[in-house]
Amino acid sequence: MLIELDRIYVIPLGGLGEIGKNMMLVRYQDNIVVIDAGLMFPEEELLGIDIVIPDMTYLFENRDKVKAVLVTHGHEDHVGALPYLLREIDVPIYGTKLTIGIIEAKLREHGLTGARLNIVKPRDKINVGPLEAEFIRVSHSIPDTLAIAIHSPVGTILHTGDFKLDQTPVDGEVVDFRKFAELGEKGVLLMLSDSTNAERPGYTMSERVVGNTFDELFGRCEGRIIITTFASNVHRIQQAINTACKYNRKVAVVGRSMINNVNIARELGYIAIPEGTLVDVELINRYPDNQLVIVTTGSQGEPMSALTRMATAEHRWVSIQPGDTVIISATPIPGNEKLVARTIDMLYKQGAEVVYGPATGVHVSGHASQEELKIMVNLIRPRYFIPIHGEYRHLKKHARLAENLGIPRSRIFVVENGQVIEVGRKKAGVIGKVTSGRVLVDGLGVGDVGNIVLRDRKQLSSDGIIIVVVTINKETGTVIAGPDIVSRGFVYVRESEQLIEEAREKVREALLVCEKKGATEWASIKSHVREALSKYLYEKTKRRPMILPIIMEV
Amino acid sequence: MLIELDRIYVIPLGGLGEIGKNMMLVRYQDNIVVIDAGLMFPEEELLGIDIVIPDMTYLFENRDKVKAVLVTHGHEDHVGALPYLLREIDVPIYGTKLTIGIIEAKLREHGLTGARLNIVKPRDKINVGPLEAEFIRVSHSIPDTLAIAIHSPVGTILHTGDFKLDQTPVDGEVVDFRKFAELGEKGVLLMLSDSTNAERPGYTMSERVVGNTFDELFGRCEGRIIITTFASNVHRIQQAINTACKYNRKVAVVGRSMINNVNIARELGYIAIPEGTLVDVELINRYPDNQLVIVTTGSQGEPMSALTRMATAEHRWVSIQPGDTVIISATPIPGNEKLVARTIDMLYKQGAEVVYGPATGVHVSGHASQEELKIMVNLIRPRYFIPIHGEYRHLKKHARLAENLGIPRSRIFVVENGQVIEVGRKKAGVIGKVTSGRVLVDGLGVGDVGNIVLRDRKQLSSDGIIIVVVTINKETGTVIAGPDIVSRGFVYVRESEQLIEEAREKVREALLVCEKKGATEWASIKSHVREALSKYLYEKTKRRPMILPIIMEV
Repeated sequence: MLIELDRIYVIPLGGLGEIGKNMMLVRYQDNIVVIDAGLMFPEEELLGIDIVIPDMTYLFENRDKVKAVLVTHGHEDHVGALPYLLREIDVPIYGTKLTIGIIEAKLREHGLTGARLNIVKPRDKINVGPLEAEFIRVSHSIPDTLAIAIHSPVGTILHTGDFKLDQTPVDGEVVDFRKFAELGEKGVLLMLSDSTNAERPGYTMSERVVGNTFDELFGRCEGRIIITTFASNVHRIQQAINTACKYNRKVAVVGRSMINNVNIARELGYIAIPEGTLVDVELINRYPDNQLVIVTTGSQGEPMSALTRMATAEHRWVSIQPGDTVIISATPIPGNEKLVARTIDMLYKQGAEVVYGPATGVHVSGHASQEELKIMVNLIRPRYFIPIHGEYRHLKKHARLAENLGIPRSRIFVVENGQVIEVGRKKAGVIGKVTSGRVLVDGLGVGDVGNIVLRDRKQLSSDGIIIVVVTINKETGTVIAGPDIVSRGFVYVRESEQLIEEAREKVREALLVCEKKGATEWASIKSHVREALSKYLYEKTKRRPMILPIIMEV
Repeated sequence: MLIELDRIYVIPLGGLGEIGKNMMLVRYQDNIVVIDAGLMFPEEELLGIDIVIPDMTYLFENRDKVKAVLVTHGHEDHVGALPYLLREIDVPIYGTKLTIGIIEAKLREHGLTGARLNIVKPRDKINVGPLEAEFIRVSHSIPDTLAIAIHSPVGTILHTGDFKLDQTPVDGEVVDFRKFAELGEKGVLLMLSDSTNAERPGYTMSERVVGNTFDELFGRCEGRIIITTFASNVHRIQQAINTACKYNRKVAVVGRSMINNVNIARELGYIAIPEGTLVDVELINRYPDNQLVIVTTGSQGEPMSALTRMATAEHRWVSIQPGDTVIISATPIPGNEKLVARTIDMLYKQGAEVVYGPATGVHVSGHASQEELKIMVNLIRPRYFIPIHGEYRHLKKHARLAENLGIPRSRIFVVENGQVIEVGRKKAGVIGKVTSGRVLVDGLGVGDVGNIVLRDRKQLSSDGIIIVVVTINKETGTVIAGPDIVSRGFVYVRESEQLIEEAREKVREALLVCEKKGATEWASIKSHVREALSKYLYEKTKRRPMILPIIMEV
């Protein structure tokens, strides 16, 4: 792949064709700028995997060219892969104060010190070699979120990050419309824009709407109020606190990540809590129910979260009681619908009233809907357009929106992770592909769990395992101990003694056949045993456990 | 639990606090009538389980009292447990023609013959001992659906089954409003009513709406049209066929369950297909794209379904091509959202246009929304009310609806599976509990997979297994072969040779310690080995595979 001197290249390593692990590279000559380094939570078929990060091989192979990482905001799907990047490449990081605060805490957890972290403000510009990066304020579901413009000799590339166009943001910091207009007026070569909500018609409601709903709910609730939301949604938490103060309620913050995030946001000045508002969760019983708000983790129904433990009466300090109102101020992330539904059911069973769902106004999205996406396209009118941050259908819908606004189809690229898009002043197109994909993190292992291990986990999970052990005399080849059969996850052994005894008999027969045939190769013996057993067990149970013959020689 | 002579009892064995495995018992003296015997598809944490059925212990213990099974309609969650019930109890089954047709096919698959199947029509009445059952037409997403009234000396119990109030059903067979009105007028002691959509405000749209959408789509599509829906949604399929005929398109039916259902429905007269409309899927290439409709399974994104295989270019006869329009005429069942989304993405990637989602009018629900539920309550005005068929929050919302309509709260019971509700003319209440719950079916095993097996599968699925084998001299207690270590689903062994070698060393050390201590009990040796290995592996990998020490004696 030839890197031309008068072209600029964008290479997505994550976030295209998927929601999560966002990572975009912009390369000009020998300078690579990374925008975001996020993680993704594993889909359910990735059994046992903790997190998924982008395959950064291309970055590692070009480590001397990587000049900076620019981070749009502090969500996990934008910062979560940073520790894995920084372990390999020492490169300066740029982000707003809150973003850097979150990154600092994360690096500390990973035991990484000495990272070169730099705080920037909206409208700041920094130089990265021959490139200039400019930061622009947008609104999102976490404060201090940025879009990023990269000015190059070829032209300007605008990366919107995640955004919505909130006209009445809680912190009063409106999207920098004028800067976007200015960029549009000067001419943007390529725009990369957030597609998460490209399927949603209309406008995304303002975060302020949730504040109004809280006000209305707090006004009529007579018992305790328990609010759960994403721990990073600082404005949401702020609104809960404001409303609590208005109605003379104390606030207890519960759940590790909620406490951590409130602390970071408070230290850095992103959340304002009047003196005397916070109370220790251990002391909530000192206050009457109608003077309490509990802000807690658990909005995704996570089994170990504080809210779930409250709902199952397993939380140390808080039990749900009749009269409680629980506000689920979040939407289930795809895949979590059932967990959230189960939590709601349990809360109802404990006697709580539960406020949830899109019709109630207790949650709004952090991403632009179709009309906002159109505004962005029309403000910028880029020469080239690439929808980013979305599954394939989102990218496709976003591309169609842009086309309907008059961006020629030939200048819109629906691309995938790893594709290299070459952009010149008059011409652009996909010119190749670099290594890309997902790297699975399981415990301390990064990338060591591959398809074989996952396939084994899959088989183990569905029908369990049967282990057959025989000890054989090395010289004579005769069986001197066993066959012993041990199984896990297959049948409940105590109730299946006969099955196991018959299985042992099948193994004996298979071994005998081998002996008669003079088959002495382990591999051949094992495969005979496996076949005989597999056939027998499938006939008897219609299950296909993993069968693992082990031969010991003495 | 005392069964009083002048009381009637209802005992839900499934479908309350859950969506699926519906089963309701009505007991009067020594007569038990069963309404529905359904299955449920397993939630994802039930690793390897095929289906879930109600625990029918109470029925089996009272087998001589079980007089009839009345089936409201032919969906799996109403008929799927019948084979397991009939295997134990020989009892007559009553249902409409289509329902019995579906049951017949199902029993055949299970190799069950000689079942006493009886076809009834709406407004038919049958006697079951001192009870009289009356069948009433309702609309739903499968034809020939019934509500059932049980007339007893104590009073009438009305079970709505699954229903919606479709004013313009495709087959012209409107809900029997007059019969419901008559029952209400005469007085219903207890109503049990479908809560599936109790969270939805307004009315559920008529099935006819989908026909209009099809008409509009067919009118403008120039390529092939591929429609996927539930195979049991006979009216939907009929509408697809009608619209195809109108636009001079041939129809190919694809997917095993779709073909089976169309055949049953056609044989029994529930679907009308004009001569020359159907074409063999193998011959579709003989027709121009704009003269073809393919009706297929796969509406839930099931990995092995016809549509998914088309989307991944693995279907034998149909590959998706640019110009195709795929209509997803179904809604994802909770838990299937991601599979469906993935299928849509793949279809787009192959170049198809995809029509999906609630805004497009290509699907309507088969269950009554809040306004319809209110109509049912107001038509009947029962003395007692029990919401059925729904997760806990649905039951709760439905109860509240009824309360808002003036049914006193003291006469509404939100109950759980297994609870026994005693109903007298003047008094009703929960008086006890019978055995209830879920029975897991895995292959041929019914109920043999319990918590221990599932817990093992869970551990195996997340971190795999390590097997340690040693052969020990029976007399001296010294190790004469091994320790050998085999692992599956833990790490990729070829890349982890050092880890495994060190693990073996840890086992050797543990065995040595045991030998020195004179520990000769297997249990004690195993637990030492397990502990040492577990600690070492967690330190090195932060994973907790199952550790299985096996000792062979020679």
